Amino acid sequence: MFLKKYFEAFDIGELRTTMGRTITETDIVLHAGQSGDFFPHHMDEEWCKTQPFKKRIAHGTLIFTVAVGLTAHVINEVSMTYGYERLRFTRPVFIGDTISVKVTISNKADHKKPQYGLVTELVEVFNQYQELVMVCEHLLLVEKQAQ
Amino acid sequence: MFLKKYFEAFDIGELRTTMGRTITETDIVLHAGQSGDFFPHHMDEEWCKTQPFKKRIAHGTLIFTVAVGLTAHVINEVSMTYGYERLRFTRPVFIGDTISVKVTISNKADHKKPQYGLVTELVEVFNQYQELVMVCEHLLLVEKQAQ
Repeated sequence: MFLKKYFEAFDIGELRTTMGRTITETDIVLHAGQSGDFFPHHMDEEWCKTQPFKKRIAHGTLIFTVAVGLTAHVINEVSMTYGYERLRFTRPVFIGDTISVKVTISNKADHKKPQYGLVTELVEVFNQYQELVMVCEHLLLVEKQAQ
Repeated sequence: MFLKKYFEAFDIGELRTTMGRTITETDIVLHAGQSGDFFPHHMDEEWCKTQPFKKRIAHGTLIFTVAVGLTAHVINEVSMTYGYERLRFTRPVFIGDTISVKVTISNKADHKKPQYGLVTELVEVFNQYQELVMVCEHLLLVEKQAQ
């Protein structure tokens, strides 16, 4: 779906939540192939048994990818990604865990180009136990409505 | 390869560069399937012709994934990822572009747990024209050598 949501239309505290996604062994295998990251943390069940976390864990880049994908449903034609801040992987995600994302508008600021503003989305990813597994801030460069 | 590189062994300015990876149409298609992000910026060649960038562009999460994967060759058993800061996608990456990564140790700092230190890697991703396409800071929590 395409829409035009200008800077002025974002309200701090505005909240949306996504559908869930179960992280499967297939996701990890595909992600290893796509990234080239075959570290034993993700690929070697026997080595993982010797580690504190005991089981294969999803790549951080996989969780980030799925989390951003879960939020990608509405195309705002007057907004673009400026970047991400404070990306943290706070707990491991295991095969069979189900994650979903909560997005909260947490800040609005001016930009050096006066026709744009910066909107910050707080992106929080939870597992099926409502434990936080990933968090970051997504910065959006959003057009201001012509006066 | 496994090794143990303690906090004290990291030097500011230390540099490594990776092999290159050509970003293919297959990468974009697989990444759309894995992420669920089928935005027209990545999937709709005809819509892209109406946009300033004219051609399908790689997902930011794909470039981040491949960049991190390119750096994932040596497993430091006394280090773990703490997070990422200031992730920016500075130019679009198109099908057929080849990216490689330059990693520079840019900072070392204490951590509240005295047996650990924080190492910052500046991660810069360049295309085949040596143009910067992505940049971020990778924070590592690294054990200090037992005194």
